[in-house]
Amino acid sequence: MNMTFKQLADRYRQALLSDIIPFWETKSIDTEFGGYFTCLDRYGQVFDTDKFIWLQARQVWLFSMLFNRLEPRSDWLDVADRGASFLRRYGMDAEGKWYFSLSRDGRPLVQPYNIFSDCFGAIAFSQYALASGDEEAKAIAHRTYQQILDRKSNPKGQYSKAFPGTRPLVSLALPMILANLTLELEWLLEADTVDKALETCVDEIFTLFLDSQHHILRESVSPSGQPVDCFEGRVINPGHGIEAMWFLMDIGQRQNNTQLIEKCVEVILRTLEFGWDEKYGGIFYFLDIDGKPPQQLEWDQKLWWVHLETLVALVMGYRLTGNAQCWSWYEKVHQYTWEYFPDPEYGEWFGYLNRQGEVLLDLKGGKWKGCFHVPRALYLCLREFEQLI
Amino acid sequence: MNMTFKQLADRYRQALLSDIIPFWETKSIDTEFGGYFTCLDRYGQVFDTDKFIWLQARQVWLFSMLFNRLEPRSDWLDVADRGASFLRRYGMDAEGKWYFSLSRDGRPLVQPYNIFSDCFGAIAFSQYALASGDEEAKAIAHRTYQQILDRKSNPKGQYSKAFPGTRPLVSLALPMILANLTLELEWLLEADTVDKALETCVDEIFTLFLDSQHHILRESVSPSGQPVDCFEGRVINPGHGIEAMWFLMDIGQRQNNTQLIEKCVEVILRTLEFGWDEKYGGIFYFLDIDGKPPQQLEWDQKLWWVHLETLVALVMGYRLTGNAQCWSWYEKVHQYTWEYFPDPEYGEWFGYLNRQGEVLLDLKGGKWKGCFHVPRALYLCLREFEQLI
Repeated sequence: MNMTFKQLADRYRQALLSDIIPFWETKSIDTEFGGYFTCLDRYGQVFDTDKFIWLQARQVWLFSMLFNRLEPRSDWLDVADRGASFLRRYGMDAEGKWYFSLSRDGRPLVQPYNIFSDCFGAIAFSQYALASGDEEAKAIAHRTYQQILDRKSNPKGQYSKAFPGTRPLVSLALPMILANLTLELEWLLEADTVDKALETCVDEIFTLFLDSQHHILRESVSPSGQPVDCFEGRVINPGHGIEAMWFLMDIGQRQNNTQLIEKCVEVILRTLEFGWDEKYGGIFYFLDIDGKPPQQLEWDQKLWWVHLETLVALVMGYRLTGNAQCWSWYEKVHQYTWEYFPDPEYGEWFGYLNRQGEVLLDLKGGKWKGCFHVPRALYLCLREFEQLI
Repeated sequence: MNMTFKQLADRYRQALLSDIIPFWETKSIDTEFGGYFTCLDRYGQVFDTDKFIWLQARQVWLFSMLFNRLEPRSDWLDVADRGASFLRRYGMDAEGKWYFSLSRDGRPLVQPYNIFSDCFGAIAFSQYALASGDEEAKAIAHRTYQQILDRKSNPKGQYSKAFPGTRPLVSLALPMILANLTLELEWLLEADTVDKALETCVDEIFTLFLDSQHHILRESVSPSGQPVDCFEGRVINPGHGIEAMWFLMDIGQRQNNTQLIEKCVEVILRTLEFGWDEKYGGIFYFLDIDGKPPQQLEWDQKLWWVHLETLVALVMGYRLTGNAQCWSWYEKVHQYTWEYFPDPEYGEWFGYLNRQGEVLLDLKGGKWKGCFHVPRALYLCLREFEQLI
């Protein structure tokens, strides 16, 4: 790759500020009912008006974060405010648990079965409170964080379909999101709470989920960290594992913990060796650790967030360790990502490619893709390259 | 296509009796714990030992059905018996509701959240009771049928994530399976019950789910049959709609109802026009009725059961009406299906192809594919062609 760190920083800044942010700022605002439209087709036209809490909250987070960390622009705070007002009014049930989705006008559609709605609610209101100085927003973030900790041992509650006891499994997603959540909310939590939570997350991720043979993270293991030979126990989600590693490198950086960072880099590299598609390029979505047929029919697809999280992890790993393999992988993933995902013709990035790299769904936002992974990763890579300059 | 009806009947018979049935008879039996292994890789090797009720029950049904309708071979009854014994012992909870999955040795893994487990349990024990004369099996089938009717208005119970009232939806799957279920259990139900159930199914499917503009079946509509503009409300599953139509033609044939049969044929043809992939051939898995991006990432894949159910529907439609379009579509779907799905090298059929027709997962059985759609469709086509000769 024939680009300097300065050129790379510029490229990320330009994509963030001239493409992605204007796209969402101009196309996603629901001026009638509040909140955001996230289901936008290739051209940015609204094709569905349901409001998914993950994506509403993530967009509040993103615009608040840019206001807090990049530039205190009032138009960004305005965008955040629209989502925050909507979510504060409609997002939670009477107990303060976050619904999964709402109708356009805010009536609950899907019950609060999903603890990640609460996680994204908490980081949204934390960043928004920082940006706006709103005390009620801070209280919502704090209360939601506590509720997440309380629900952690049984996140699905009545909606869990697992028969108790036969095959208990714990999931990587929970300690992983708690790591990120705790760093996000650090400013409003007690120092003790933060230290304890971060220690638990790091410990759980490496003690329980790291496969000793392959040195990559499993998505589900037994509560004592044993591999379980079933579909859920064998599944590898390379993008998820790599994202977890940059969350932990964030902690390692904060703690000046070189050993932790080196360990994360090792896992990132092993995951890429395991998850890279040698035939068509790109990183697979799901694989079976034993090479058996995975359950997910979308296993061979190339998803935007997988590649973006990997870019963040690789540039961060490179900056923190200087590891040459991080850089050569960065170049490889950069080339693939920038070649296949952006849509220069109509703006923003495609989310879903087939194995061959062709566009599978040309939406720019939907039920799971919104204003989050693209701008977050562009922002983080920008900051990494600024530091590398 | 240059084959006579006789040649076609022979081809289906040969595939059924020389390939598919021996594959499952020799590779799927769990001689240690009872029941069947359904997770078989390309070579027929067991790659997972979990026991999914849908597939256990469907294999009991299939071998019992062949015993009852094709030839009373004791080895077929033996195979059915292995599954029936296992299911009778482990398949249901204390209330007689069917679990979704069990461990290899029969311990419950996934709760009875899924009413289709009960549906397949009922048809399995009904056919098995017919084959074996076992009165207890008959009682299980009968009791399960009653419980399905009782649960019909709220099939997911506590596991439903929909917030009550905001956007009520009803699902095509339920009247569709009840149509098939009722015909299967006719011999042990009161004539009145049968007539009433069949009438309700036919009426619901055409009154509620048939889209008046496209003349194809929606998967979900409002309880009064209005289209609902949301992901679930827009989704079209062509294979499912076509399968529903041969279930109704079965009823039409029984009732000598030419009008009903003609209506089914019309829907089959429209669904094929809507769901056929002009670029690569084959029938899409999911589409959005308004051409918006579907939610299912596997939307463009070509699945075995979709094509097999379509062959059954087309040959049945052709035999019953002589409609020339049925025959020309039959030839087209026949050519695609027989070219891409069978695996002459290692036996049985592939289940999952990508849009281009390449094998996406080379398993012969998994969590959703077992000894059911392939042999059922081969059997039904064989019988259709025998009648056409």
